[in-house]
Amino acid sequence: MTEGRLLIPTIKDIRRARQRIKDHIHHTPVLTSASINRILGATFFFKCENFQKAGAFKFRGATNAVLSLSPQDAAKGVGTHSSGNHAAALALAARNRGIPSFIVMPRTAPEIKKKAVAGYGARIYYCEPTLEARESTMKQVQHETGCTFIHPYNRFDIIAGQGTAALELLEEMPDLDILMAPVGGGGLLSGTAITGKSLSPRIRIWAGEPAGADDALRSFRSGKIIPSVHPQTMADGLLTSLGSLTFQVIRQYVDDIRLCSEESIAKTMQMIWERMKIIIEPSSAVPLAALIDHDPDWKGKRIGIILSGGNVDLAKLPF
Amino acid sequence: MTEGRLLIPTIKDIRRARQRIKDHIHHTPVLTSASINRILGATFFFKCENFQKAGAFKFRGATNAVLSLSPQDAAKGVGTHSSGNHAAALALAARNRGIPSFIVMPRTAPEIKKKAVAGYGARIYYCEPTLEARESTMKQVQHETGCTFIHPYNRFDIIAGQGTAALELLEEMPDLDILMAPVGGGGLLSGTAITGKSLSPRIRIWAGEPAGADDALRSFRSGKIIPSVHPQTMADGLLTSLGSLTFQVIRQYVDDIRLCSEESIAKTMQMIWERMKIIIEPSSAVPLAALIDHDPDWKGKRIGIILSGGNVDLAKLPF
Repeated sequence: MTEGRLLIPTIKDIRRARQRIKDHIHHTPVLTSASINRILGATFFFKCENFQKAGAFKFRGATNAVLSLSPQDAAKGVGTHSSGNHAAALALAARNRGIPSFIVMPRTAPEIKKKAVAGYGARIYYCEPTLEARESTMKQVQHETGCTFIHPYNRFDIIAGQGTAALELLEEMPDLDILMAPVGGGGLLSGTAITGKSLSPRIRIWAGEPAGADDALRSFRSGKIIPSVHPQTMADGLLTSLGSLTFQVIRQYVDDIRLCSEESIAKTMQMIWERMKIIIEPSSAVPLAALIDHDPDWKGKRIGIILSGGNVDLAKLPF
Repeated sequence: MTEGRLLIPTIKDIRRARQRIKDHIHHTPVLTSASINRILGATFFFKCENFQKAGAFKFRGATNAVLSLSPQDAAKGVGTHSSGNHAAALALAARNRGIPSFIVMPRTAPEIKKKAVAGYGARIYYCEPTLEARESTMKQVQHETGCTFIHPYNRFDIIAGQGTAALELLEEMPDLDILMAPVGGGGLLSGTAITGKSLSPRIRIWAGEPAGADDALRSFRSGKIIPSVHPQTMADGLLTSLGSLTFQVIRQYVDDIRLCSEESIAKTMQMIWERMKIIIEPSSAVPLAALIDHDPDWKGKRIGIILSGGNVDLAKLPF
């Protein structure tokens, strides 16, 4: 990680990413709910990345990264260390290009995640459940295979890919007052913020973050990256810390980060399940939960929210 | 109920119903799932009535019935006895026309259903949980209020309204080989069958029915209505028996009724939740479960399925 100024994607890069990935991804629907609008007193537009291939927005960035590789690099495959949606997304994106993928996962990862990644044809390397073990195993795999390491969020092409969800949303609903995404490592938030501010200078970009994993808010306020230490939240997609690149984008383009309680995440998730009849994972509920937990300065507004994914273990629901 | 020939709706009546209700209902999406197509080896088109207002297709028929009343009759309100989706749908349809609704419910109905019906502004009358108590309480309420009793399925205008779901599906996907709905009282199946056979003479109309509530299949085979006695199924929308009108339509237009086990209903429901990220109630899983449980004569075909509703108690999932 560098201390200097990093090159960040522009809306042109996000438009190029869209051209590159559009035949490979789902153009997901924007859903509304009259009952949620009535209950909360605002007009919400939900961009349903829970319907995206591999079950989350991650497939956009992963596909953009995989398709951006030169034929020479692509032939050697791609790798990452992850126990979450990025691993499955990368494995599927690699399979779609016909190249190998190498995924380092902690032995302790849920069976359902191991199966999903294996189902997409990845070669899996198990390691101890520590960041050090993940990184050293990954380095070993890179050394052996020559694969390209695809970081889950702190990459130009990943951020550009994630920004295509907001691009589709704003093309369908251009007159939003507020645009929100959850923040973990910041890839989705970065892409969303660049797209939002580029297409609509008056739009406010807000993030939702679990109070039990509030490193992004603390970083945002203090002006330097404060790593996530022992984060505690059911929103398992939001446990990671900001990267150098995502932090720079967020400082430049994001207007506010709002926290929410675990109880609010569970209640909001249940409200979306019951009212909208769609399955979202806890991370997807975080932006709306963060609105509910704070000032009502958003009442009466037109608010776009990226529902980040729908991969949830049905045997372990928080309500 | 009469032994003679009853007047059944035609496609013209269903088209008229569509005109009558179209500004009041959701035109629900038709969803596909590449992974379900791959797993099962056919091409499925799911008409998502789980996204319909009040959470089920029932709102189509209820709205058609309520809007078909003369101003004089409408002013006195509508009533029904039901503990399920029809009660909520009728209450909402009545509120939308600005007329009262009177719902007779067993005291033992789930709290969640009582709340939904009350939330739509219905006046609720509680009775003992027997059909006799429901019918006598309903008669008393009709006597007191002058309301029109709206049977949940054995009515011309209800069947015509339910047929509009298949009408929308076939306008979007005209070249289906097979069109399926679940069967309980037969309102949805009747409307679906009339629409399907009218728009596409070559289409096969199949129904799915739980093996634990197989009165429709037994009626279909024996040529006379065999009432449902002690039905046992988690598909709580499919406990009722056919009516004189729906039986006549089904004999005339339906090609096959296929049974499924409870285990298959739960597994299929879970597959749709996990793969499609949408919430459906057990009844909605019955057609696909019935395909899986029987002959593979549908492999490779283009199959439309009406997902009937999404009202499920999240605290009592069958998986």
